[in-house]
Amino acid sequence: MTPKADATDRYSERMPSLGLSERIDSAVCAAINTARDGAAPARLSAALDYATKPGGARIRPTILLSVSVACGDDQPQIADAAAAALELMHCASLVHDDLPCFDNAETRRGKPSVHRAFSEPLAVLTGDSLIMLAYEVLARTGTIDPARASQLVLALARRSGMPNGICAGQGWESEAKIDLSAYHRSKTGALFIAATQMGAIAAGEEPEPWFELGDRIGEAFQVADDLRDALMAAEDIGKPVGQDARHGRPNSVNLLGVDGAVSRLKDILGGAIASIPSCPGEAMLAHMVTQQARRLIPMTAQSQQA
Amino acid sequence: MTPKADATDRYSERMPSLGLSERIDSAVCAAINTARDGAAPARLSAALDYATKPGGARIRPTILLSVSVACGDDQPQIADAAAAALELMHCASLVHDDLPCFDNAETRRGKPSVHRAFSEPLAVLTGDSLIMLAYEVLARTGTIDPARASQLVLALARRSGMPNGICAGQGWESEAKIDLSAYHRSKTGALFIAATQMGAIAAGEEPEPWFELGDRIGEAFQVADDLRDALMAAEDIGKPVGQDARHGRPNSVNLLGVDGAVSRLKDILGGAIASIPSCPGEAMLAHMVTQQARRLIPMTAQSQQA
Repeated sequence: MTPKADATDRYSERMPSLGLSERIDSAVCAAINTARDGAAPARLSAALDYATKPGGARIRPTILLSVSVACGDDQPQIADAAAAALELMHCASLVHDDLPCFDNAETRRGKPSVHRAFSEPLAVLTGDSLIMLAYEVLARTGTIDPARASQLVLALARRSGMPNGICAGQGWESEAKIDLSAYHRSKTGALFIAATQMGAIAAGEEPEPWFELGDRIGEAFQVADDLRDALMAAEDIGKPVGQDARHGRPNSVNLLGVDGAVSRLKDILGGAIASIPSCPGEAMLAHMVTQQARRLIPMTAQSQQA
Repeated sequence: MTPKADATDRYSERMPSLGLSERIDSAVCAAINTARDGAAPARLSAALDYATKPGGARIRPTILLSVSVACGDDQPQIADAAAAALELMHCASLVHDDLPCFDNAETRRGKPSVHRAFSEPLAVLTGDSLIMLAYEVLARTGTIDPARASQLVLALARRSGMPNGICAGQGWESEAKIDLSAYHRSKTGALFIAATQMGAIAAGEEPEPWFELGDRIGEAFQVADDLRDALMAAEDIGKPVGQDARHGRPNSVNLLGVDGAVSRLKDILGGAIASIPSCPGEAMLAHMVTQQARRLIPMTAQSQQA
């Protein structure tokens, strides 16, 4: 199914995910190719490609496109650019978070982290370059609709930088006393808020009503990540586990126990579904959140609950 | 003189620099304050302030505002935002370039570098946050003129990332064989091209005719920096010297000798003046380039030529 066909079929009740992952991969690839064009330095060029392929679950851009589709997706090219930009920003944050001065992660998505595979300087530059590329991709949509383009840049920048974005989230880890709510909302929640708000903007809707859905999905994702970090073996998630315990970072499993955290996760997802603004694809979005919930709750925890 | 008065007086032949530095400082401060708002983590917040104050020569935003003034400066708020964004990007690049994995610089602008004063994680995050803030500042001008806002984001992103921006420039240093022309144009020239093009866009003009002026100023700046690096004592420029020789990087003084490099610098500046597009403030801009030239050529080299 082509992206066009998927967009045309946008009000159906079935999951639109069949075309979404192809739209995301194609948009991310196209962006990376523009960055590798011409006389680019070869190793940094290869590192950009390495850092974005193979993709992970692409959950943030999938949410973004789902919201855009639910809102009518009248400019699929803008939505695709927004999805690519969000995924590039997420990949950039992973590359920088893996650096020796942060998590010093040896692996990511089942292969050596960028600084291990290339070098520390190239990992810093890969993160920086992916950030620039994210904004470049958004700005290029200005020829289609400059108002949406500048709103998308604003939404992404606010959820990436200071005081409320992923940089702020990572910054909390350098504080003696952590504001737990600000820490989780900025470190994990921010790009989910960006996902729902950018999906709305890409389809010509106001971003504000979509804050709560992104915020709640982010909260659910954080609890799920805590559960995974505490319960699963390294080979299942392709990155080292137990990082939180090792770095003394706050974790909802430590606070609530496994059962408490699973129960909290279900409550949050119920709230997420209730928060979905009225739109043509409201029921489809509720279905998407439910489906993501099944993927979020680790099997180990599900069986412990059974 | 207030920024408004300076903008009104914009076609005069005298240097407009009296109001420009105040406009730049005020716009950079305002941007940093928005990033430190609310529940921001305190140390990262302090590091953003530290990395941008006191400013250096602010040469890139000064060129940007000079071009905007020469083109009529009909939206001074947009020009100020563009100047702040460009300076924030430059500061971000300095913080990352100083990191242990690159230059491992102990000092910058006469005080400890950000990773020395705060920590390596906070230096990575300071650079990242300043980059996000640069784009946020530009995107906020979308409420005034969304077309100019998205064009400004595009111009800055293209000169910051890959394949032609400052990330690419730094990336060349990880290559076994360096394309010297691509290296200098991207590492040093890129933000000067951004300066002239963003100044034009901020005033509602097309960016393309302004490429050459930025490109030539960047080339002149690179040669001047090479001369400074080779000739001057550390205390005069507030950062360690001889970095190029130490890191085996290409340098025009090594290639041409001191006299040859000074002569090359003068040729480039002549070409820069000749390239200025026809605009109301053409003569003023030529004067600005001449004045910058006097500052660029180190006194030591001037006396060697006398």
